Amino acid sequence: MTRYQRLAELLAQRIEQGLYQAGERLPSVRTLSGEHGVSISTVQQAYYLLEEKQLITPQPRSGYFVTPRKAAPPLPPITRPVQRPVEITQWDAVMDLLNARLDKDMLQLGSGMPCIDAPTLKPLWKIISRLGQQQDPRLLSYDNLYGVPELREQVARLMIDSGCQLTADDIVITTGCHEALSVSIRAICQPGDIIAVESPAFHGTMQTLRGFGIRAIEIPTDSVTGISLEALELAFEQWPINAVVVVPNCNNPLGFVMPAQRKQALLTLAQRFDAAIIEDDVYGELAFEYPRPITIKSLDMDGRVLLCSSFSKTLAPGLRVGWVAPGRYFDRVLHMKYISTGSTVTQTQMAVAAFIRQGYYQPHLRRMRSDYQRNFEVFTRRVRHHFPCGICLTRPQGGFLLWVELPEPFDALRLNQDLRASHIQIAVGSLFSASGKYRNCLRLSYAQPFTDKTDRALEILGEAVERAMLCCPAVAEPSARGEAGEGRVSEKEGY
Amino acid sequence: MTRYQRLAELLAQRIEQGLYQAGERLPSVRTLSGEHGVSISTVQQAYYLLEEKQLITPQPRSGYFVTPRKAAPPLPPITRPVQRPVEITQWDAVMDLLNARLDKDMLQLGSGMPCIDAPTLKPLWKIISRLGQQQDPRLLSYDNLYGVPELREQVARLMIDSGCQLTADDIVITTGCHEALSVSIRAICQPGDIIAVESPAFHGTMQTLRGFGIRAIEIPTDSVTGISLEALELAFEQWPINAVVVVPNCNNPLGFVMPAQRKQALLTLAQRFDAAIIEDDVYGELAFEYPRPITIKSLDMDGRVLLCSSFSKTLAPGLRVGWVAPGRYFDRVLHMKYISTGSTVTQTQMAVAAFIRQGYYQPHLRRMRSDYQRNFEVFTRRVRHHFPCGICLTRPQGGFLLWVELPEPFDALRLNQDLRASHIQIAVGSLFSASGKYRNCLRLSYAQPFTDKTDRALEILGEAVERAMLCCPAVAEPSARGEAGEGRVSEKEGY
Repeated sequence: MTRYQRLAELLAQRIEQGLYQAGERLPSVRTLSGEHGVSISTVQQAYYLLEEKQLITPQPRSGYFVTPRKAAPPLPPITRPVQRPVEITQWDAVMDLLNARLDKDMLQLGSGMPCIDAPTLKPLWKIISRLGQQQDPRLLSYDNLYGVPELREQVARLMIDSGCQLTADDIVITTGCHEALSVSIRAICQPGDIIAVESPAFHGTMQTLRGFGIRAIEIPTDSVTGISLEALELAFEQWPINAVVVVPNCNNPLGFVMPAQRKQALLTLAQRFDAAIIEDDVYGELAFEYPRPITIKSLDMDGRVLLCSSFSKTLAPGLRVGWVAPGRYFDRVLHMKYISTGSTVTQTQMAVAAFIRQGYYQPHLRRMRSDYQRNFEVFTRRVRHHFPCGICLTRPQGGFLLWVELPEPFDALRLNQDLRASHIQIAVGSLFSASGKYRNCLRLSYAQPFTDKTDRALEILGEAVERAMLCCPAVAEPSARGEAGEGRVSEKEGY
Repeated sequence: MTRYQRLAELLAQRIEQGLYQAGERLPSVRTLSGEHGVSISTVQQAYYLLEEKQLITPQPRSGYFVTPRKAAPPLPPITRPVQRPVEITQWDAVMDLLNARLDKDMLQLGSGMPCIDAPTLKPLWKIISRLGQQQDPRLLSYDNLYGVPELREQVARLMIDSGCQLTADDIVITTGCHEALSVSIRAICQPGDIIAVESPAFHGTMQTLRGFGIRAIEIPTDSVTGISLEALELAFEQWPINAVVVVPNCNNPLGFVMPAQRKQALLTLAQRFDAAIIEDDVYGELAFEYPRPITIKSLDMDGRVLLCSSFSKTLAPGLRVGWVAPGRYFDRVLHMKYISTGSTVTQTQMAVAAFIRQGYYQPHLRRMRSDYQRNFEVFTRRVRHHFPCGICLTRPQGGFLLWVELPEPFDALRLNQDLRASHIQIAVGSLFSASGKYRNCLRLSYAQPFTDKTDRALEILGEAVERAMLCCPAVAEPSARGEAGEGRVSEKEGY
């Protein structure tokens, strides 16, 4: 830690402890320089850092002031979905989300796209290029149905960190996690069956259930501890549920990491009712804490967990390299993969295997974890700044997705339409429910580096939300903006 | 045509016309040289060519003799499958076929793998390598759900040759033709539905029907004219059939190209019974005749044909670049693609688009068409040579697959097991039927260049078939080998 960072930390502590109060003028640069025996520029740098963190605000010709603090928005309360199996719709809204990819000018705040610009990803280009030069005939040949052996070995090794004892032979490579989920669902369900899902739940999984004529029963889910085991048990008692689909690590969209004991309890419950667990771990390696959280699969003794994942969030989604460890359902998953795509692209599998084998994967993962965590902090701070009071915000423990809950009956669908003119796209909450819940919610992505453009977009978004809340009597409250008015910082946009 | 080729052709004509009779000694090299006023070496070369074509046989120290001719085996008669919808099984046999890919020492005569060694395919390597160098971020990003626009444009242009008026917007890119077929079937059928298929039919399609709980009704199919329209009409009258799946161009496995009028008649029939047609055109561009045969899609006025294809047979299967033109079922196909794989690998799509745009595709196609046609001629000749009499052989009009019918109750499954020790793999006929037909049939591939190893494999195969036929009283006939005994040429193996 450099000198100015130490000074900044000291000042931040004092602000935290109330030694410097909100709105109070801070000591001049010269005073601090004398007091701490450091240079003027060191103090200046420390102040810049605190300004960047929005703890202090410069006032032209008056010096620095402690930024008035806005209360941290609360976490969303546990969800309350409909307690019976429902048919899934929402395809139009999903298409809407997907079509936004076509518009190059659109700022895609709703997208699940990771950042692919990190320097630690650069060696992948060289690997791709070299694969072309080497003219390995395997690139052009049918892959075997299981997937490229080297890659399966690497995946098995990576999964040790999640507590899993897997071998290459336990793994089937798929075209992204999407196919992994799709073949898993099909391997264990028939049309008309019922699957329990978290609520909110990833729209891709929901659409897959819909496509196979499977009904979803949405289970209340807490934004810190995950799926409610009590509600799930009740559902198991009432309905013939075949399987549970969960994203226990860095949940999409709520961002929680389910505590290990709850993972064990979920597995025990599934055993008691003889249900399978489809575990979507696609964000698991992007947990902010290290070592990464365990998978439910790591606790699984009787092969009932189908662990699905991919390199779409950790490396790049265009590679479409996913995989599934299907446990006791291996043969059926293999059959389903055969009828789904026959085999997987060889080239991108070999590229990923080489990237891992040559030692590039772990440094890249470290970099992305820390980038996303930093993005999260900045992004959340700016959301709090630009958005009116009365919202709930998740505190993701990994990944790059933030869930914003606005007071009912806020209509995110309409907001999304209104934002189109400003070339901003969000993921509307109703995508994540089979029963039309969460119209008052949005999912935002902080995967991309935070820029002026992002900040401006959050400002527009905040204003639009505020307008919508004022127009809507049930939502608007006299102090809907609360301290936000004063709180809005007038410094240069973004950083 | 060079001098020696002209001379060889003249001699071939004389043999054909009976001027030189089977077993007769041909004029000496010196005699012919004088007679035709050409050099000794020209005559020698002409004789080598005829020997290669197996029209003549050298006898040590006696000169060349006209090879005794074996009667051309007849075409297989029209098939007679069970005339009711059946459940599909045979997954074990398919896995067996797929697992053979894992054994590098296995000569895969049963595989659908094209030849990827042609020099005209070489530019693809450079394109792949350049894509890595250019670091186009699209390679790593989620593709849009429809597929890369440039590729869709190229596909639409290619399909003009098949008579189709398509635009890029009519096309959805898929992970191989396999996914194209799979999403098409799912877009138009529910579990329990009935689909009519040719008999024999591609095992991949059959397994897809099975995976979705769809029953197949197998329609008698002629090895020259394709699916029996009379039988299909009868089936339509008796059963609620949703769709027909056909491979009308260079059929897999029978090799026929359905005549244009019959394609029209099939479409009319489908219109009358309001059924969809899933047209698998994956071998269509490999028809020996040029211009290539039309697709049923080109005749389709009301969008009931879902045209499925890929670059797996024309370029390379490892790329997994397929596509579907789903007509009126576009939206449902798109939804099914979304739930199947989310999106397709961007990189291989861009590579294929560049390969076509840069003008490499048509020359490669011409090369493959002529290579496969030449392979077919040599391969068939050697099959006729090594196999006993009493077999039926198809005469493929394109592609690289040959269908061999042996007298019932020959058991190809057992043959396949017996061949394992010799590292030879064939595709057993029963793979191509839902009702366990065609145990007496095999599908062989002549995609790879014909080598000594291929010839030796055909010899082993021929001997195994002969042994099996002799062991099996119902099959064996006194003259089971017919003229083959004399006909077996004792010259050096292969060429």
